[in-house]
Amino acid sequence: MTDTLTTGVPSSALLDALPAACTTTDPAVLETYSRDQASWAAHGTPLALVRPTTTDEVQRTVRACYEHHVPVVARGAGTGLAGAANAVEGSVVISFEKMNRVKTIDTLERFAVVEPGVINDDLRAACAAEGLWYPPDPASSPWSTLGGNVATNAGGLCCVKYGVTRDYVLALEIVTGTGELTTVGRRTAKGVAGYDLVGLLTGSEGTLALVTEITVRLRPMQAPPTTIVGSFDSTVDAGNAVRAIARAGLTPAALELMDRHCLEAIDQWKRMDLSTDANVLLLARTDTPGDTGTEEADAIAECFTSAGAAWAMRSNDDAEAEALFAARKLAYPAVERLGNVLTEDVCVPKDQLPAMLAAVEEIAHRNDTLVATIAHAGDGNLHPLIVTTPGDADQKARAQRTFEEIMDVALDLGGTITGEHGIGTLKMSGLTRELPPPVQAMQTAIKNALDPRGILNPGKVLA
Amino acid sequence: MTDTLTTGVPSSALLDALPAACTTTDPAVLETYSRDQASWAAHGTPLALVRPTTTDEVQRTVRACYEHHVPVVARGAGTGLAGAANAVEGSVVISFEKMNRVKTIDTLERFAVVEPGVINDDLRAACAAEGLWYPPDPASSPWSTLGGNVATNAGGLCCVKYGVTRDYVLALEIVTGTGELTTVGRRTAKGVAGYDLVGLLTGSEGTLALVTEITVRLRPMQAPPTTIVGSFDSTVDAGNAVRAIARAGLTPAALELMDRHCLEAIDQWKRMDLSTDANVLLLARTDTPGDTGTEEADAIAECFTSAGAAWAMRSNDDAEAEALFAARKLAYPAVERLGNVLTEDVCVPKDQLPAMLAAVEEIAHRNDTLVATIAHAGDGNLHPLIVTTPGDADQKARAQRTFEEIMDVALDLGGTITGEHGIGTLKMSGLTRELPPPVQAMQTAIKNALDPRGILNPGKVLA
Repeated sequence: MTDTLTTGVPSSALLDALPAACTTTDPAVLETYSRDQASWAAHGTPLALVRPTTTDEVQRTVRACYEHHVPVVARGAGTGLAGAANAVEGSVVISFEKMNRVKTIDTLERFAVVEPGVINDDLRAACAAEGLWYPPDPASSPWSTLGGNVATNAGGLCCVKYGVTRDYVLALEIVTGTGELTTVGRRTAKGVAGYDLVGLLTGSEGTLALVTEITVRLRPMQAPPTTIVGSFDSTVDAGNAVRAIARAGLTPAALELMDRHCLEAIDQWKRMDLSTDANVLLLARTDTPGDTGTEEADAIAECFTSAGAAWAMRSNDDAEAEALFAARKLAYPAVERLGNVLTEDVCVPKDQLPAMLAAVEEIAHRNDTLVATIAHAGDGNLHPLIVTTPGDADQKARAQRTFEEIMDVALDLGGTITGEHGIGTLKMSGLTRELPPPVQAMQTAIKNALDPRGILNPGKVLA
Repeated sequence: MTDTLTTGVPSSALLDALPAACTTTDPAVLETYSRDQASWAAHGTPLALVRPTTTDEVQRTVRACYEHHVPVVARGAGTGLAGAANAVEGSVVISFEKMNRVKTIDTLERFAVVEPGVINDDLRAACAAEGLWYPPDPASSPWSTLGGNVATNAGGLCCVKYGVTRDYVLALEIVTGTGELTTVGRRTAKGVAGYDLVGLLTGSEGTLALVTEITVRLRPMQAPPTTIVGSFDSTVDAGNAVRAIARAGLTPAALELMDRHCLEAIDQWKRMDLSTDANVLLLARTDTPGDTGTEEADAIAECFTSAGAAWAMRSNDDAEAEALFAARKLAYPAVERLGNVLTEDVCVPKDQLPAMLAAVEEIAHRNDTLVATIAHAGDGNLHPLIVTTPGDADQKARAQRTFEEIMDVALDLGGTITGEHGIGTLKMSGLTRELPPPVQAMQTAIKNALDPRGILNPGKVLA
């Protein structure tokens, strides 16, 4: 694609055109910026790393890459789980870590304007100080950035009631594939002037434009939630409880599942004794205020019990409830301590959740592979975490087979291969199975239209 | 663009390729399908009208148009207010009126699958029978179709709390600009496999693809609402009340404004005596259940009073409350009885609502033009209706000036020229003022990518 890629030698003309004050070519530094958290996904070696502090530096970088036909890969904190932020060979990596200002919180219109490097939890804290709430809460919220959240259309625990990142993005300041700086979207509650470019760019993994400023919609502060915990003997029972909650017309504000492998991994790390009392835990929350909320909590507990829970209870202890959700957020790093993790992200219709959970266990067993499952169960969104010992090639092959088979079952059940993590490079094979050829052609046509030189994170998202 | 357009004579080869059983070229019929409700927007004469009953007939029509380079214009009920469904000269018009089946309502996963010709209120009724709710409620809901709602990304009264059509569209079956039949989107709660084509197509006014089936997300049935009515001496006072509600962190389920001209127009038609008691009415609704809802209703009434309402009250009479909202939905046809209507759709930040309302009155006065204003006030979305006597050229020129000036003020106040009606052809001049040139270029690039022969509703949406 580029002369740089062909020769493998950095083009000095390109390097001269990058903003010197924030550019490095130190190989040791480049190495630490060459991939995200998807350790299974391939990555290349970048030519240079740019850590801009201004929009102008971003624009100069993209213009230089456009001029020299060099790939440019944007990244936030690198907590992505699909390789979307992995360096392309011979690319310039732009890390937005230093563009981390919360610029505006408008309490009347209820929006915030932030730089892409702002950490999710930092925005949430800034909003809370104003009595407002930014709902999207990926488990990576203590580390992941808004720019990364937008690039992947990140989900989280609250999606089941409050939607995903795309539901909150109002406007984006961007640098286009031809190096122009402009703004898409609006600050008003509604607006239909032209095609919805904000929604198109959200979740596009840096392949259609680079984001230099984000305007997100906010909500009034969430009412204090009530937590309901259920313990189940099997994941299928827990899946049936989730289905019962959907059947009852209930909408919890969170509905999370952790299987025995996850509970044990957390216990080994944090000594919480979760696996002493339970094989599978469901954690639900309701934030409906007043008596209606109490009725909702009771109804959720009843769904747990009617689906065969060993025990189900409404937590009267806020600290305990917080600790349980904190444990849920630690499940991924806890399982990562067991070995290399290949992360699934399938999402199925809720009616199919028990079947999907059963299939995951069957596939794991048949392939003799350790699969620890956490799930945003209320969305039908599962994260089976496939764990292998580094260096064991046979295990790795079985893990890869497990990965493909789980995606196939999800598609057979009317689901998708990725609920919230994105395609990156990790799920390319599944993508071609999921999207019909005319849709793949439409996606490619849009990519070519907005990135005519193919410099924006090439090799990602598109089959 | 086409040989047909050049000669003005229908191509017999094209007509032969259209599905005969549902095609007509009767000029009297064509005339009634040549435009939507935007009487001010120009329209051409179509070559033929196709009223398909099957997806196959839609696909055959688009393929014939693709083959013969003939424009194809999709329409629903023709209730659009921006000319988006107006026939292009020499086009084939496809009316989806006969594709009006509700195919599926899934009570567990909470979605409905419908053909594009289903009328909004019919879907709402079908959902209600299952204890579910399809929120988007344009004032045209008794007549407008889901296909038209998707094409324009229709809003409505409930948007202020529940969002617009795009927030509910999960998947679309489409015929592409090259005549291929495919599906975009998903049925699961979440999904990020590839770019968001569903969001891109929603609101694209039939310029990127034709929709043959729609899957929409549903919600549990809305709780019985409480209505709060406030009477104000001036629109600016009412605007201040809306601002006060936003400041107080309240989120009503509807917050509508009608000015004196609207109230009088409804009274003249329906003899409701609305204008006897009020100059300007604000109608608010809250659907929060229990005591919290009662507190919310009281807080809204207090905001009305503190902003200077002549009177404010919580309605204890459901029939009366229903009648007031029914009157609100009749405001547009009531004003249409006064003359030709040029419909604004500006949307401004809520903080700017009083300034926008004041500006509308000043512009109307200065241009000696009758402007009756209804507004989804809680969204900052105004519909100043500019009324003229048919045949009065001077009045028409003043109305056009009024139209342009109102859009200019909305843009100056940080707003948009269209909150929910779309661009069509009516707001082309405003679009070029609103969207930066790089964004216009991106929109055009996408259009060209997805509609390579430019046959899909040419001349709409894009500047």
